[in-house]
Amino acid sequence: MAADTPERSAPPRPRGAYAKGIARRQEILDRAIEVFAERGADRTSLRAIAREVGVTHAALTHYFGSLEELLVAVYEESNAPGRQAGSPPEDATPVEMMIESARINRAIPGLVQLYSTLVASALEEGHPAARTFATGRFARLRTRLAETVRQQQAEGRIRADVDADAVAALVVAASDGLQTQWLLDESAPQHEALALLDRLLRPTD
Amino acid sequence: MAADTPERSAPPRPRGAYAKGIARRQEILDRAIEVFAERGADRTSLRAIAREVGVTHAALTHYFGSLEELLVAVYEESNAPGRQAGSPPEDATPVEMMIESARINRAIPGLVQLYSTLVASALEEGHPAARTFATGRFARLRTRLAETVRQQQAEGRIRADVDADAVAALVVAASDGLQTQWLLDESAPQHEALALLDRLLRPTD
Repeated sequence: MAADTPERSAPPRPRGAYAKGIARRQEILDRAIEVFAERGADRTSLRAIAREVGVTHAALTHYFGSLEELLVAVYEESNAPGRQAGSPPEDATPVEMMIESARINRAIPGLVQLYSTLVASALEEGHPAARTFATGRFARLRTRLAETVRQQQAEGRIRADVDADAVAALVVAASDGLQTQWLLDESAPQHEALALLDRLLRPTD
Repeated sequence: MAADTPERSAPPRPRGAYAKGIARRQEILDRAIEVFAERGADRTSLRAIAREVGVTHAALTHYFGSLEELLVAVYEESNAPGRQAGSPPEDATPVEMMIESARINRAIPGLVQLYSTLVASALEEGHPAARTFATGRFARLRTRLAETVRQQQAEGRIRADVDADAVAALVVAASDGLQTQWLLDESAPQHEALALLDRLLRPTD
């Protein structure tokens, strides 16, 4: 799971019953985030989650539609700007950003599990919410990182002879894959491999 | 999903009822592989799979224990030497091996889905068979690729100033991650990113 900074425009301020509905949805979402942080996003039913969150199954369906849509909401909300515990410095290279994300993610294994569950669901048939989430996230992340790569190539901080889009896809892939390996086995050289990639992408003197 | 070549010693030839049991297990497994190839490894019940495979739920439980153990068996059997449609040349670099795997995997999306489902399960609590599978697979693959890296470093085909274990972890991660991105969006530069990594790892002239 790599750093996410979803672009959001500020929603208009809602009123009355609608405002109450939004507030209630947010309350449920906040509680769901706590539940997932505590016990991971193990594949479970909307009913079981409703029980733990302390709402009815009908309420969960009303506010989120399906289990999958709730999971996407939990993930996106948890990664919203301001909710994350730290962010990489402005001038970080794309790989340095991923190293910082990896550091943050170690503290929130439940969220990382949730991310990999959503991506695995996205690859299967019949999971439109997960697929929309995963496809959109990868596309946005690649676009954003490729932009950074081009800028840092112009500044002489990343070697000029590499394709920015390929670098972006590679960095996202390496970050996701190494995180998985490390979660399964702490002896996997996650940090070393990311540091190596960072070095390989620097200009040769 | 990267190239797998599980090491297996030839099992002793079994006889009588035991032999029949093994043959029956193999029959079920072969049919299960067909079922997964046709419809992907969507998260479903052992009961639903038993129905499609055409055996009783009790038989499936008898031969495989749990759905997860069946999934692991399907994956491992599908990747067994001789069952795969092609293999990279002997002198391929680790990244070239992954490029060849990616080419093969495009023809078998069901198996790739199955792989990602098993890895996602492995990251959750309560999936011991998936965890054993994924942890063991990553560890073996890293060890094998690191060996190849060292050998090719000695031959001057991979740059000498990189740590073989970090390269191995990086190549496996990049391969898995890029496959996921490509499956979700064919415009993701999977091949370009793997070719770039291959180039970055070659000795600089």
